Amino acid sequence: MIAVAEEIGNMIIVMQSHAGPEHIRSVVQRIEEMGYRSNVSEGEETTIIGVIGHSSPDQLASLEFMPGVDRMVPVTKPYKLGSRDFRPKSTVVQVGDARFGGEALVMIAGPCSVESDHQLWEAARAVKASGAQVLRGGAFKPRSSPYSFQGLGKPALEMLDQVGDELGLQVITEVLTPDDVDLVASYADILQVGARNMQNFTLLQEVGRSGHPVLLKRGMSATLEELLMSAEYILANGNDNVILCERGIRTFEDSTRFTLDISAIPVLKHLTHLPVIVDPSHATGKWAFVPAVAKAGVAAGADGLIIEVHPRPEEALSDGPQSLKLERFAQLMIELKPLALAVGRSL
Amino acid sequence: MIAVAEEIGNMIIVMQSHAGPEHIRSVVQRIEEMGYRSNVSEGEETTIIGVIGHSSPDQLASLEFMPGVDRMVPVTKPYKLGSRDFRPKSTVVQVGDARFGGEALVMIAGPCSVESDHQLWEAARAVKASGAQVLRGGAFKPRSSPYSFQGLGKPALEMLDQVGDELGLQVITEVLTPDDVDLVASYADILQVGARNMQNFTLLQEVGRSGHPVLLKRGMSATLEELLMSAEYILANGNDNVILCERGIRTFEDSTRFTLDISAIPVLKHLTHLPVIVDPSHATGKWAFVPAVAKAGVAAGADGLIIEVHPRPEEALSDGPQSLKLERFAQLMIELKPLALAVGRSL
Amino acid sequence: MIAVAEEIGNMIIVMQSHAGPEHIRSVVQRIEEMGYRSNVSEGEETTIIGVIGHSSPDQLASLEFMPGVDRMVPVTKPYKLGSRDFRPKSTVVQVGDARFGGEALVMIAGPCSVESDHQLWEAARAVKASGAQVLRGGAFKPRSSPYSFQGLGKPALEMLDQVGDELGLQVITEVLTPDDVDLVASYADILQVGARNMQNFTLLQEVGRSGHPVLLKRGMSATLEELLMSAEYILANGNDNVILCERGIRTFEDSTRFTLDISAIPVLKHLTHLPVIVDPSHATGKWAFVPAVAKAGVAAGADGLIIEVHPRPEEALSDGPQSLKLERFAQLMIELKPLALAVGRSL
Amino acid sequence: MIAVAEEIGNMIIVMQSHAGPEHIRSVVQRIEEMGYRSNVSEGEETTIIGVIGHSSPDQLASLEFMPGVDRMVPVTKPYKLGSRDFRPKSTVVQVGDARFGGEALVMIAGPCSVESDHQLWEAARAVKASGAQVLRGGAFKPRSSPYSFQGLGKPALEMLDQVGDELGLQVITEVLTPDDVDLVASYADILQVGARNMQNFTLLQEVGRSGHPVLLKRGMSATLEELLMSAEYILANGNDNVILCERGIRTFEDSTRFTLDISAIPVLKHLTHLPVIVDPSHATGKWAFVPAVAKAGVAAGADGLIIEVHPRPEEALSDGPQSLKLERFAQLMIELKPLALAVGRSL
Repeated sequence: MIAVAEEIGNMIIVMQSHAGPEHIRSVVQRIEEMGYRSNVSEGEETTIIGVIGHSSPDQLASLEFMPGVDRMVPVTKPYKLGSRDFRPKSTVVQVGDARFGGEALVMIAGPCSVESDHQLWEAARAVKASGAQVLRGGAFKPRSSPYSFQGLGKPALEMLDQVGDELGLQVITEVLTPDDVDLVASYADILQVGARNMQNFTLLQEVGRSGHPVLLKRGMSATLEELLMSAEYILANGNDNVILCERGIRTFEDSTRFTLDISAIPVLKHLTHLPVIVDPSHATGKWAFVPAVAKAGVAAGADGLIIEVHPRPEEALSDGPQSLKLERFAQLMIELKPLALAVGRSL
Repeated sequence: MIAVAEEIGNMIIVMQSHAGPEHIRSVVQRIEEMGYRSNVSEGEETTIIGVIGHSSPDQLASLEFMPGVDRMVPVTKPYKLGSRDFRPKSTVVQVGDARFGGEALVMIAGPCSVESDHQLWEAARAVKASGAQVLRGGAFKPRSSPYSFQGLGKPALEMLDQVGDELGLQVITEVLTPDDVDLVASYADILQVGARNMQNFTLLQEVGRSGHPVLLKRGMSATLEELLMSAEYILANGNDNVILCERGIRTFEDSTRFTLDISAIPVLKHLTHLPVIVDPSHATGKWAFVPAVAKAGVAAGADGLIIEVHPRPEEALSDGPQSLKLERFAQLMIELKPLALAVGRSL
Repeated sequence: MIAVAEEIGNMIIVMQSHAGPEHIRSVVQRIEEMGYRSNVSEGEETTIIGVIGHSSPDQLASLEFMPGVDRMVPVTKPYKLGSRDFRPKSTVVQVGDARFGGEALVMIAGPCSVESDHQLWEAARAVKASGAQVLRGGAFKPRSSPYSFQGLGKPALEMLDQVGDELGLQVITEVLTPDDVDLVASYADILQVGARNMQNFTLLQEVGRSGHPVLLKRGMSATLEELLMSAEYILANGNDNVILCERGIRTFEDSTRFTLDISAIPVLKHLTHLPVIVDPSHATGKWAFVPAVAKAGVAAGADGLIIEVHPRPEEALSDGPQSLKLERFAQLMIELKPLALAVGRSL
Repeated sequence: MIAVAEEIGNMIIVMQSHAGPEHIRSVVQRIEEMGYRSNVSEGEETTIIGVIGHSSPDQLASLEFMPGVDRMVPVTKPYKLGSRDFRPKSTVVQVGDARFGGEALVMIAGPCSVESDHQLWEAARAVKASGAQVLRGGAFKPRSSPYSFQGLGKPALEMLDQVGDELGLQVITEVLTPDDVDLVASYADILQVGARNMQNFTLLQEVGRSGHPVLLKRGMSATLEELLMSAEYILANGNDNVILCERGIRTFEDSTRFTLDISAIPVLKHLTHLPVIVDPSHATGKWAFVPAVAKAGVAAGADGLIIEVHPRPEEALSDGPQSLKLERFAQLMIELKPLALAVGRSL
């Protein structure tokens, strides 16, 4: 694996209000035995001990065991290469003509799964005509049930490649397992790491090593910090071409499939230099709510959208209920244009 | 209380796959003893029994106990007056010149708490100049800690009333307890029922009886269905002037104070005829993220926004971190105008 | 209201890694202008500033606005009277013979709602015979839907009082609104504040002033810290007789009505000296899962249980699906005895 | 992949209350075009249409698009081989002398990560002496941060194998990626699929094909239904040796690392014939709360526990804060014995 970053963070130790001087002395001694420096700051109610030096959170966490310690507060962020502190200027990930993070929004559209040559061509021509730059389509599908359609596999990759080439569309498709990274990368312009694989660290390392552009979807129960730590796996393997995607998190609300975390967009823009796009299709799970959420994503500052579009959603082998018909997607693209302008972007 | 609606819903009973004819007979018999009609539909794996008639969900729920029953599926919605089925045309709640649910967006702005005459005048003049139609300001504050500032009470109501009158602003403030409804209604144009009181049913009934316009905030862990059932308490007491407010729900994500459920807007617009506004200040808890989320709310179809604004947030007695400075609010209003136009609204 | 505690907590300010000396100087100056002392601790990556003195979190929060500040870390707990730091010895709340927090577990049982004299006597005799010391029964019911049964009101209070007296059972019932506190307290031995009212601060203050024993249920989306802050409202009004109740929190899992947070028991026992009981009926929402969760509560260290029991759950006007039949409750009590012994308690 | 089960479920279609006869006709026609039979049941407010036949949920879902349709209610469960309907008798998974799902509880214990020969021997001897039958220890570690210790890899497998052999302990360790399944299976008696990989379907299929006993941990945001669908991937590949593990789900509560879903145990016991164990270490993330939650798991009916134990937690390279010291684990085992007896089990 990668070399471990030299310094990952300092730590603050908050002592219990009834901790005595002997507790404080013991903690300080233990910190120094571990090779760190300490800084004791006595308040009226509570004493605080700062730990300074090149620290390992795992090792420091053990101090939580010591008598008199109330809790540990990590001070520095657990990720580095992806942080805006590290690189203040926003990253643009260029894939063909599409520039994720540039002034123009990037639209990714297409069917959930590649189902046939005919279906793919029909969808691709339509989304191209409506202004999409990238074609999506699943070849290997992660399905909750083993009895659901699992994708056409390699033939779908070939179709995507051919259709993309002929129509001048970039192609994105999901890769499920480390062994398939090279195969998928030989056909697709962007590798998608799906929400269920956001913490499949072996896969993250492999797409990192590939150097290929990666769309990393937020796990359905991942904090933004965890998303950025997963991105760090890719970045730390030398691949800077990472695009983040907010696709809804799991909450108690069940009128939509997931709950799109709209504030994730400004928060990520604040924390990281990486481009951020929004997936309103998986977030809502229902086509009727896709346009409103797509618009919200653009208004909140997303760098693009990824939308499921199908010529005949009622015949789709997966995700039919959340796919837009071709004409509805065309209509959405028309409606998004003035909105993009209103937030200083173009489409 | 109100008269109980005559019919609130039918129910479907799904039998277990190994349920025998004797189980089915017993369930049917019990349904008929309760005074309902039944409709048995035998599938290859499972039998389904429909219950028809004027039913009480509580009573029917007891069937879940019977041998052979797998689960109960309620068929009709548990609310009625607020549903779009009942009233397909969108309701406009008019308060002075402000028309919630009309073509023009309604902007509510002002400080979290009324702190002084000076602070309120300063904030009110600024939000009026920026284009807000309604002034917000807390007189009675619900605070998690008993040691936090609890509001100025009645003097704050008087200040709000006077400032609103002189500047031509409508006034909204929160009412915490049934006993205060008449008092607050005598000063304020809109009664706010806060998130923590969304299921304070005594309060809901009292604001219902008042006939006064009500802003009902979604509880931080309330489903949209529960929000609509709470609105039903107000509507069923003869008060149609209900405005709903999405203000963020509680999730595991902690980079913001709550998670604004952006899809709540199109979902509510689909389910109900009532107007819906968005509160980006409480949802995010951090002023820096307020503008992006405010824009997202407008783009998603909200009928207005409620935003915390303070002349000097660093001196605020409550919610300082999420309050916009006067000039930032003015700037946001400028940026919202083209966005409103882009979604077919005005500001 | 109560007098504000003199000191509620210190604060740590973590500066951004690129913050310069001028940022640090400004923050320190502002802290001192507010009347606090500060303590600067410079790390290799980050500077940390401690704020010392009698502080108001609201006021300090405003520092988050200042340039160079990364985030604020509150150091002391936002509650005091309820904390084990403040009172290390566990509190016993005595109600008649029942001692919440003593060696013997306290069992509360009875119907969700009081429905009739007959139903209440039948349930009460049975739970008494099985070993319960406290009788529960709702007189005023908080219902999500305005069309559901809302309780019998005062007549139910009279029945509870009479049945309790004659059978030698203590009585607990819910109070929904501040105006009813005196009325309910004149009939019931314990006032219940329900989950939906955990942050109804006016009600909390009123039950605080009453001096009557209070069972405070955790809100369905309340953190344990918030539960303790709500308890603080009661304690700070001079009422030490507070019993806490874990009754399930709202999560994405829908096989049960709520998710009982079993670790809340040891965590609360660690944080507070107040007794803690468990409500397996509301947590699961299904009687079949009540015994397993009741046992888990006892094993985890709860001081008692509150369980819904009904002579004929299939006829219950509320919560039928989660009520145990009389004989099932009797059986559960038999099974709980050896379990209580196994964790060093008696029943 | 496996052959698709012949029938996975029927569906109920609930029509909107204002749906007309032409809407009903269209839906029925479409159902029949798809090759299913339909059953129309007209209520007073709503019409319900049952779909009967060998159906594909994906295909049927498309009906949600049709005018007049309110929603779709799936009737049969999306999993089969794992359901208690399919196999009413509880499955016992035998691994050496350990019988998961038998009368005796199975205790798995050991360090989070294998760190050295010395550490492993020390931990293994102690847990064996305390009565554990299975030794845990991580060789390949899934870590949120790329900068954390990632495990010793193959040498750790060899150590585990040797220690297990010499002490007569079965060995369990996690496998992260399909390519490693054969390697890990050649050393370990049980393959662990971690929470972050619960929906790594390629891995599930591979451990399914291996025929090796598998411990499948619930994903931190997975419903119980999704857990059972993931188990179905293993079962459908011909491997019946599946043990389920509840290890805490992600909620808003942050006093523990996750929230152990205690009711998952009785719910799973109701839904499936597979054995279920509990992991109190990862659920709480803090050793001080592990014993209470461990006891709760046993009381709720778990078939065993998996607990992190370390000779010197303060030196652990991972998960130190949640590891029990050797003597604390020994004490817990002593305390669990009477508890197991109290619920009719042995230890």
